[in-house]
Amino acid sequence: MIIIGELINGTRKAVGAAVEAKDADLIQDLARKQDEAGASFIDCNAGTPGDREFGDMEWLVKTVQEVTEKPLAIDSPNPKVVELGLETYTGSATPMINSVSLEADRIENMLPLAAERKTNVVALAMDDNGVPSLPGQREDIANKLIDACIEAGLPAGNIYVDPVVTTQSSDANTGPMILQAIAAIKSHNPEVHVTGGLSNISYGLPNRKLLNRAFVTLAMAQGLDSGIIDPCDEQLIATITAAEALLGIDEWCMGYITASREGKLGE
Amino acid sequence: MIIIGELINGTRKAVGAAVEAKDADLIQDLARKQDEAGASFIDCNAGTPGDREFGDMEWLVKTVQEVTEKPLAIDSPNPKVVELGLETYTGSATPMINSVSLEADRIENMLPLAAERKTNVVALAMDDNGVPSLPGQREDIANKLIDACIEAGLPAGNIYVDPVVTTQSSDANTGPMILQAIAAIKSHNPEVHVTGGLSNISYGLPNRKLLNRAFVTLAMAQGLDSGIIDPCDEQLIATITAAEALLGIDEWCMGYITASREGKLGE
Repeated sequence: MIIIGELINGTRKAVGAAVEAKDADLIQDLARKQDEAGASFIDCNAGTPGDREFGDMEWLVKTVQEVTEKPLAIDSPNPKVVELGLETYTGSATPMINSVSLEADRIENMLPLAAERKTNVVALAMDDNGVPSLPGQREDIANKLIDACIEAGLPAGNIYVDPVVTTQSSDANTGPMILQAIAAIKSHNPEVHVTGGLSNISYGLPNRKLLNRAFVTLAMAQGLDSGIIDPCDEQLIATITAAEALLGIDEWCMGYITASREGKLGE
Repeated sequence: MIIIGELINGTRKAVGAAVEAKDADLIQDLARKQDEAGASFIDCNAGTPGDREFGDMEWLVKTVQEVTEKPLAIDSPNPKVVELGLETYTGSATPMINSVSLEADRIENMLPLAAERKTNVVALAMDDNGVPSLPGQREDIANKLIDACIEAGLPAGNIYVDPVVTTQSSDANTGPMILQAIAAIKSHNPEVHVTGGLSNISYGLPNRKLLNRAFVTLAMAQGLDSGIIDPCDEQLIATITAAEALLGIDEWCMGYITASREGKLGE
């Protein structure tokens, strides 16, 4: 599982306050913890409005890369902010843009940034009509977006498709639609990764972490191999480790057995 | 999820001793607990050798049906013992035979018992060559067995195919083979149920219950809708409840929300 650590996001209250106060300790602590917990990318989202986002993103990238060598995911809807984030990033590993989509503004302004620098990208299955709500829409948009990314020159392995995880509480068909989309996306192009903000599925329902664990497992059964998640959620990571063992991704279950010996699987 | 409660099995030490000592209290306690925990069938396996099995099965069926109205699954490799179990069973719900298979002896002697009485059957994907070990074998055998059951006059909905769950620790391809078999069996005949002794998957590995929870979820993603499991394993049942909500089986997540309100989902 390629984990995109989601904790450094200014829309979270404590993180937003730390960004505003330039509290490097809190941010660096989150970066270190996610690195040690096994994140492959550390997402950086300043979450601030208007022009303040430029200075905040620059500070965030500098602050985070002081304590981790993991590549960063530069997370903003503003292509100019993303460009500044990429220029500020000095690490050797290939960074990620979060996100491109089939929305006109993102195709015109965000995709060229990714293509020119051959970054990784989160490819969000949305177009100018907003969040897909009908069966088949997610995979249609995602497959067009994959084709656009590849046509622009991005290697398939740099593309992390996000089928747009919405909430099960609003529509009982949400889970089946997303799971079906994951399978269809993988069948359209097996080399792309499939990721997503998985915890959105449980919004508005009780015992969210239980649902999140079941959902990541169901999604892995359809080919999901990445997640925008909290790598410090030990039960979630234990569940992913178990699912990898059972799907034969973790040969001889060695990763699973090692995690068990290190006391990482609980119980 | 149609749960076949597995706890009354004489090959388990305490149950074997209770069968030998005719300790009705222990057996009836297990029957009641499984009934209350939501089992749809209560499996009855005396686990005793030779001719002793006749008297033990007769006692077991009488003892169990005194405390539950749930249908019983008469579980023995001996068709004559199964016949006695079915004759002893006086409940109004349709009982189950555990199991038929494509082995010559079971096709000739067990299947007619099921067909004549229109019972439910566990249809084990095995033939005279033993436990399938190569990709494709489980579904080939299962599909032939489904056809044989239907030809004998059994309704598809009475058939509970068991793809033969073996252990992941012996072969990293076991999980993928079984999951693929489940999908193929459902696609061959969507009306049959798919079940299995799911906890076998984790034999020989640490943190077995974690693996069992991940495996039932992966299997449900492929269409498994029944399990020969311990209905009193609260975390396992919570995981199944969450997966049903996410797969849209549990409309409006009402079963999930009710279970949460009743404190059955933990955390």
